[in-house]
Amino acid sequence: MPIVLDAMGSDNRPDPEVKAAITASNALHEEIILIGDEPTLAAKLAAIPGDKSRVRIVHAPEALDMEDKIEDARRKKQNSMRVGMELVKAGEGDAFVTAGNTGMAMYYAIKSFGNIKGVIRPCLSAVVPVKTGHAVMLDIGANAECRPEFLLQFAFLGKVYAQSLLGLKDPKIGLLSNGEEEDKGNELIRAAYHLLKDANLNFIGNVEGKELFNGQVDVVVTDGFTGNIVLKSTEAVAKLIIDVLREELMGSFRTKIGALLAKPAFQNIKSMLDPAEIGAAPLMGIDALVFVGHGRSDSRALANAIRSAKHAVDNQLLSHLRAEITNIL
Amino acid sequence: MPIVLDAMGSDNRPDPEVKAAITASNALHEEIILIGDEPTLAAKLAAIPGDKSRVRIVHAPEALDMEDKIEDARRKKQNSMRVGMELVKAGEGDAFVTAGNTGMAMYYAIKSFGNIKGVIRPCLSAVVPVKTGHAVMLDIGANAECRPEFLLQFAFLGKVYAQSLLGLKDPKIGLLSNGEEEDKGNELIRAAYHLLKDANLNFIGNVEGKELFNGQVDVVVTDGFTGNIVLKSTEAVAKLIIDVLREELMGSFRTKIGALLAKPAFQNIKSMLDPAEIGAAPLMGIDALVFVGHGRSDSRALANAIRSAKHAVDNQLLSHLRAEITNIL
Repeated sequence: MPIVLDAMGSDNRPDPEVKAAITASNALHEEIILIGDEPTLAAKLAAIPGDKSRVRIVHAPEALDMEDKIEDARRKKQNSMRVGMELVKAGEGDAFVTAGNTGMAMYYAIKSFGNIKGVIRPCLSAVVPVKTGHAVMLDIGANAECRPEFLLQFAFLGKVYAQSLLGLKDPKIGLLSNGEEEDKGNELIRAAYHLLKDANLNFIGNVEGKELFNGQVDVVVTDGFTGNIVLKSTEAVAKLIIDVLREELMGSFRTKIGALLAKPAFQNIKSMLDPAEIGAAPLMGIDALVFVGHGRSDSRALANAIRSAKHAVDNQLLSHLRAEITNIL
Repeated sequence: MPIVLDAMGSDNRPDPEVKAAITASNALHEEIILIGDEPTLAAKLAAIPGDKSRVRIVHAPEALDMEDKIEDARRKKQNSMRVGMELVKAGEGDAFVTAGNTGMAMYYAIKSFGNIKGVIRPCLSAVVPVKTGHAVMLDIGANAECRPEFLLQFAFLGKVYAQSLLGLKDPKIGLLSNGEEEDKGNELIRAAYHLLKDANLNFIGNVEGKELFNGQVDVVVTDGFTGNIVLKSTEAVAKLIIDVLREELMGSFRTKIGALLAKPAFQNIKSMLDPAEIGAAPLMGIDALVFVGHGRSDSRALANAIRSAKHAVDNQLLSHLRAEITNIL
């Protein structure tokens, strides 16, 4: 079944989406349904060379903006996000991919599909680069206020996602805290610690940034407030270092020559830190495959997002998530 | 009056401390009192050349270890931290500096000096490198569980510290949150937002990692759980990038040559990220100047820590903190 792509998600919509649909449909030999204003998309599609036989357009006259809230969305009933998710709900697509407003994607996903049976709260995940590859971090922003049992479920959701994404049999789970000892953490984390310890999980205990970025865990569990701040802060520090390094390297003739010679090394770092390599992460706990990528996504990031969604379809991520949650109830 | 230095704080004690005492006493023209085992310190001091006329030793036969808890500390009544703080309390020193166990430093500081009148909870601060220089972050670990009024006081303490440390008249204060909008945050942050907004502060609102590391705030206020995790995570990411870059640069002959030429640029980045540049941060809200540096401190970091303490003494940081807190009561 096709992958449904919101053509009106990214900051530069719909060009990156149209290009990504063509690239991905050919690379994956999979039909892609582009959701957006039909005449506009048809014209854009016609203007780009290549095999477009696997790209189909479904009309949605409206589009959500990044700053839109629920009340704005309600005024745009025919927005591409809603139309696309309804298509997946109707069984015409396997997964929905968007680079649009994350809050609205979660809103429509809950409305269209609901939670996986037994899931108390769906959450947002991110795949973060670590020394040994990648780790899954969740929640990164859906639930600023959590109860310990939410975190227990995030651990199981993250475990299944890491199994599917990273191909690990028994992913190592850590709880993000202000120290490794069992008694560290705030009230929430201390209570969650005991739930995770007693659960059927490969729980290695509390972890700090060091363990996370050294690759000692495959899944790091946190509340949406802390997770969101940590994710954005670490991204900001990485950007600061790269920016300052670039400025410093351009500071003299000698360092410029050095930078030119060292370019391959810099490119490897850049690709390691590049969120476009994965492209998008699923809304965890939703009873459907809904992948949300960054608003800044270009066509490469979007093509990778489609690939990630296809990978999840092929690996039956959703069935595995449903089975895992049923299992712990 | 002298600065009192715990000779038994750092991981490699007492050598870095002895060296730092000699360096700093000469650079600052200030007497330094070294606290530790007298015969050991006297021998170490004698073995190092240079003018040692401004270094004095006060005997403390015991030393705390990094993993020591309160019950361990109680068994070591004559530990260097306690002896040193009591010396400051007795009026024989202006400030106490240690690279030892932070939790124990806070414990003895509360016991020896108590809080500044009106301070509900003392906290830990850190000086973080940002694009434009430095920002003060607090709490970074003393209070995993906070009430909104703690955060309000942290803001005032941080403001005065930034004035003294960064020489700013009216430091910009931000509240670390999962989004810039007023309604973002968990319950604690939303309540603290209103307290900070209504206070006599240059409050710029909620900030994320981007604003912090871009230098848009001089003081970032957070609870000790979040602050500790963010600080350690950003340090870990910075280390990851530098480590991977180093490995990549050593990967081929071409990149090795490039790295050699680009060395000055890397050194500038390294010094920007180097916590040894500041050396130590004061325990905020304690009614004395107690500076705690990293356990990994070498003699340069410790000499800088002494300089930071001397700077705080010269700028009357403690009187300013007392006045500010009295003012808001």
